[in-house]
Amino acid sequence: VALEHRVGILGASGYIGGELLRFILQHPFLEPVFLGSRTCAGKPVAEVFPHLRGLADDLAFEEPDLTPILNDCDVCFLSLPHGESSSIVPDLCRHRDDLVIVDLAADFRLRSARAYREAYGEKHPAPELLAEFIYALPEKYRKRLHHKTRLAAPGCFATAAILLLEPLRAEGWLPKTVVVEAATGSSGSGASPSPVTHHPERDGDFRAYQPLTHRHLAEIRQEIAGTEILFVPHSAPMVRGIYASAAFRMHRKVSSDRLSALYRDYYAKSPFIRILNEPPRIKSVVTTNYCDIAVFTRGSSVVVLGALDNLVKGGAGQAVQAANIALGLPETTGLEFVPAHP
Amino acid sequence: VALEHRVGILGASGYIGGELLRFILQHPFLEPVFLGSRTCAGKPVAEVFPHLRGLADDLAFEEPDLTPILNDCDVCFLSLPHGESSSIVPDLCRHRDDLVIVDLAADFRLRSARAYREAYGEKHPAPELLAEFIYALPEKYRKRLHHKTRLAAPGCFATAAILLLEPLRAEGWLPKTVVVEAATGSSGSGASPSPVTHHPERDGDFRAYQPLTHRHLAEIRQEIAGTEILFVPHSAPMVRGIYASAAFRMHRKVSSDRLSALYRDYYAKSPFIRILNEPPRIKSVVTTNYCDIAVFTRGSSVVVLGALDNLVKGGAGQAVQAANIALGLPETTGLEFVPAHP
Amino acid sequence: VALEHRVGILGASGYIGGELLRFILQHPFLEPVFLGSRTCAGKPVAEVFPHLRGLADDLAFEEPDLTPILNDCDVCFLSLPHGESSSIVPDLCRHRDDLVIVDLAADFRLRSARAYREAYGEKHPAPELLAEFIYALPEKYRKRLHHKTRLAAPGCFATAAILLLEPLRAEGWLPKTVVVEAATGSSGSGASPSPVTHHPERDGDFRAYQPLTHRHLAEIRQEIAGTEILFVPHSAPMVRGIYASAAFRMHRKVSSDRLSALYRDYYAKSPFIRILNEPPRIKSVVTTNYCDIAVFTRGSSVVVLGALDNLVKGGAGQAVQAANIALGLPETTGLEFVPAHP
Amino acid sequence: VALEHRVGILGASGYIGGELLRFILQHPFLEPVFLGSRTCAGKPVAEVFPHLRGLADDLAFEEPDLTPILNDCDVCFLSLPHGESSSIVPDLCRHRDDLVIVDLAADFRLRSARAYREAYGEKHPAPELLAEFIYALPEKYRKRLHHKTRLAAPGCFATAAILLLEPLRAEGWLPKTVVVEAATGSSGSGASPSPVTHHPERDGDFRAYQPLTHRHLAEIRQEIAGTEILFVPHSAPMVRGIYASAAFRMHRKVSSDRLSALYRDYYAKSPFIRILNEPPRIKSVVTTNYCDIAVFTRGSSVVVLGALDNLVKGGAGQAVQAANIALGLPETTGLEFVPAHP
Repeated sequence: VALEHRVGILGASGYIGGELLRFILQHPFLEPVFLGSRTCAGKPVAEVFPHLRGLADDLAFEEPDLTPILNDCDVCFLSLPHGESSSIVPDLCRHRDDLVIVDLAADFRLRSARAYREAYGEKHPAPELLAEFIYALPEKYRKRLHHKTRLAAPGCFATAAILLLEPLRAEGWLPKTVVVEAATGSSGSGASPSPVTHHPERDGDFRAYQPLTHRHLAEIRQEIAGTEILFVPHSAPMVRGIYASAAFRMHRKVSSDRLSALYRDYYAKSPFIRILNEPPRIKSVVTTNYCDIAVFTRGSSVVVLGALDNLVKGGAGQAVQAANIALGLPETTGLEFVPAHP
Repeated sequence: VALEHRVGILGASGYIGGELLRFILQHPFLEPVFLGSRTCAGKPVAEVFPHLRGLADDLAFEEPDLTPILNDCDVCFLSLPHGESSSIVPDLCRHRDDLVIVDLAADFRLRSARAYREAYGEKHPAPELLAEFIYALPEKYRKRLHHKTRLAAPGCFATAAILLLEPLRAEGWLPKTVVVEAATGSSGSGASPSPVTHHPERDGDFRAYQPLTHRHLAEIRQEIAGTEILFVPHSAPMVRGIYASAAFRMHRKVSSDRLSALYRDYYAKSPFIRILNEPPRIKSVVTTNYCDIAVFTRGSSVVVLGALDNLVKGGAGQAVQAANIALGLPETTGLEFVPAHP
Repeated sequence: VALEHRVGILGASGYIGGELLRFILQHPFLEPVFLGSRTCAGKPVAEVFPHLRGLADDLAFEEPDLTPILNDCDVCFLSLPHGESSSIVPDLCRHRDDLVIVDLAADFRLRSARAYREAYGEKHPAPELLAEFIYALPEKYRKRLHHKTRLAAPGCFATAAILLLEPLRAEGWLPKTVVVEAATGSSGSGASPSPVTHHPERDGDFRAYQPLTHRHLAEIRQEIAGTEILFVPHSAPMVRGIYASAAFRMHRKVSSDRLSALYRDYYAKSPFIRILNEPPRIKSVVTTNYCDIAVFTRGSSVVVLGALDNLVKGGAGQAVQAANIALGLPETTGLEFVPAHP
Repeated sequence: VALEHRVGILGASGYIGGELLRFILQHPFLEPVFLGSRTCAGKPVAEVFPHLRGLADDLAFEEPDLTPILNDCDVCFLSLPHGESSSIVPDLCRHRDDLVIVDLAADFRLRSARAYREAYGEKHPAPELLAEFIYALPEKYRKRLHHKTRLAAPGCFATAAILLLEPLRAEGWLPKTVVVEAATGSSGSGASPSPVTHHPERDGDFRAYQPLTHRHLAEIRQEIAGTEILFVPHSAPMVRGIYASAAFRMHRKVSSDRLSALYRDYYAKSPFIRILNEPPRIKSVVTTNYCDIAVFTRGSSVVVLGALDNLVKGGAGQAVQAANIALGLPETTGLEFVPAHP
């Protein structure tokens, strides 16, 4: 019999927090015991997340606190604003070697303190811990994650970009320059209202932002080294999903079939990657942990397309998937369910 | 140990068919064995429903046929266009007393052949069967459904209207006239493109249709007899959900608390009804089998508000709920999962 | 030759302000000379309203100030938060009898200080001015508006409700109780982000709010006296538009044709009211000053449906229409343009 | 005094037809005299386009016919399905040298019959006419359009791509390979319902289609010769707009300012091109004839972003703009109006 693992979440009342809760509540071996939230402390879960009425009635948010996590938890997910994890993680690490820490912020994703400073414009507050964290992209680092306790969950855009490029990178087939464009849903901006997610402005709109300078580039560069990535993210008028495309020219002609086969091989043991023969759609992956990928070529030109849910494969789902591996569980545990359509 | 029940679906490739499949695939005691679809016969399920890739890879749609249903099935769901069920159901009934038939069309919802003719403008083709069918609204007819095999699943608007009014009707508190307004998502029009669901026309639009004359009125009248219902349905620019309001004046002042208590009592044993203290939201029920209800009064004026998912509580979910009861299973079986937000 | 009228706006950087600017910029006899905005003072118009780039390049927002309005303007539109108009209007009135003041807030819509206190929970700060203001619904008070200088533009929901009921009220045909339901787009909440207009929450959602207690009820009651209105407003997942329905039973049977004729007569001289034979649609009125209306009956049951743009006929457009009348201009001046579809 | 030009439209009842009508109705020198539509012949305009009720009440669609065009018209717009123009245009050309023909289909956009065959898979039916048609992109071919009568209006994606690349091409600065990605609204698929524009499928979805093989590539290649374009179009969940990005690496570092200046120079005399310092937005151009462009660089990496309305600058608006030039009118005539927001 698998043991039950007790879970704490810090930053539990945001969209990622809600999705973590969704997966943990339907996970056979994870039990939520502490839900920290500064803004919602004291409120029952169902008041903040009315879609959970009747499903989590015994749970409430509490004032963030390390004590219950250090004393009672086996796993801790942190979905905090950028910079906050790095002020908490050192404490957690100091007291508990065995606590599985999954940080969903950017704080521990980069292995190099210098790359961190360049990307985030400030010194990393705990550079000595960077080497301890695994970049928790299971499709790339599955083996390294086994029985590890320091996991840095990738960014949503980075997850998409790396999954699209990694099979070719591993083969040494990537050219010097690749253009990666991506469109994200509004939930990627989090649960707090802002001008860019104000409904009258977002509905019916589409626009690029931070062209060539988005911070996730640092992660992508770390993982897809040796290739210059021109990254252009866009805000799209939908709630969920990241749609990414990588376009480039290879040194010689290559068929779609040849490349699709390469992707199928690379991801043969990755249950959440589906290689398609037609362009993926956001609607086929929303709410799931799948990333759908398809490859198209014309002469030496190549386009790799990918679709995932920013809050799931690009967030809470991938974090649970990585935690599963770290805990020695099948990586799909708690993430298998039949999604709805349309 | 509960037995596995073998399930056939006729009309399996529409939106309701897809949702039936979703619930059956995650149902511990239902097994899909025949998926009939005229338009998609021969296609694997995942080709028609790409969101099910990897989740139903052994299933394919087949040419509609009664033989496998009569020979191999314990339960049959029919989600066919209006009028088609009534040409098939007599055959099914003749051969199999024990086959649990759940018809999701309007063909067997009305007990009176005359009411049918008035509502649908044509003679009922099998009036002798009308008395055999139970109007399968579990919250009202739970007891009657036990071990029955002839179930007529209610229409989506009718489900909403009746759930909003039934507690007051049962109490004899409904006045002579009630206004019921409802807004529905575009999935209610089915999977076939049409002018009213053409994206450039539906997005950003809102409009009433068939004011005072919608066919679901016949069902509502049958169940809420003695009260004149002014029913005004609307097309809203969302994909899923029905939002309904019932507004009327009572003979005397009544408090919201008093009425809310009445609703809580009436639905005390109904696991999918949640009585709220604030207006329900579509976003809190989509993809689920819940119907959220709230009651507000001001003097003798009353508004009852309700939200449900047209394809689930107003369609496939309710059909499975009713089948569960008919089969002697807990009514929530296969319908319990944690929904996503936002 | 008609004179040019110089216009000041206070609260010019909101959505209503932007729409006022749209109509004034294409108005042959209105010239914008002062655009007051606390939040955007100092910014060029095109920075705040990028859709006006190249169309208003000589205009900028300024710190709100009464001096330029008192010294340089013939007309002043106020689109300020509730309660702010009433602290400014007395000053404007004191100094300038001839200044055409069009207040788009609720401050001067009610003729009775007592009704104001009941609706808004506070004493009216300038009750002596209430009698001077005309409720600026041109279709009802066209004649009274001629050459007047104190105009209170109606609320968006109130405009819809009154336009739907007024022809029957004038005829004495309204029953004791009428249910008015309405759905509004997100722009009705203004340009400031808020939880209810956060895109991930609003998109795909639908919900009622303030059932039976919305403040616009006070206006509706004032104008449609003698009938109890059960008013239920809803938030719909679109940007623009109000869709309203009024449902009730008359004392005797009446045909749709009879009532439609009544409405056509009543609005024969109202260029912005179109009486249709089919349910109106939001998409046919957005960006325009039209209100589309249709009447349906079944026996003694009646539904009147109406669609308008909350920011235009329910806001800036109606304000300009009323100002036109007050200035002795044709009421359509500046409001005639060909709208886009879809 | 400018003469009035009499206008006929073939294919007048589609979305492009409706937008042509919008611009012609507000154009001081164009008068609509013949509206041909096979599907809507005999219907008043306001029945097909309810947003035009009261604005075009004397107009009706008629059975397509060349006689009234040849006898009564000075200008003819053709917005017909692909392949139909080329069966009509030869007749029009044969009889009327002086008739200004603006074809909005792809039939006469390519100068080379061979390129046409490659792109469209069939022999061009009237290759002898190809040389007579000007590719009617005013920003590139303004001078050539003067007093010409054979105009081939560019495709919507092609308009975006060429406007983004032309200033650099003219300078000889484009590298060998450029990636162009674009997202289009659902109105680009026309007024007929189809699976890809079925609201339940399109809302909330995003997907690429025809990666590397879209037919507009032939036009783009013709105009941006010498550079390999990797073109990836996407379907986005909005009604209107095309958002395009062109990404590539130049041979050396270049500043955003330098390139922006280049674009400002190139488009200095183009009233509908606005060069911005921030990423354009779809919401700022919808319903207008503007194309907003911005350029960003990082080292030698360049991204050019552009937003336009597919039905206007990518369709009817540009066609009227080109016709204006051909007729010797200011190119903005009939296209100047103040758009609405949000």
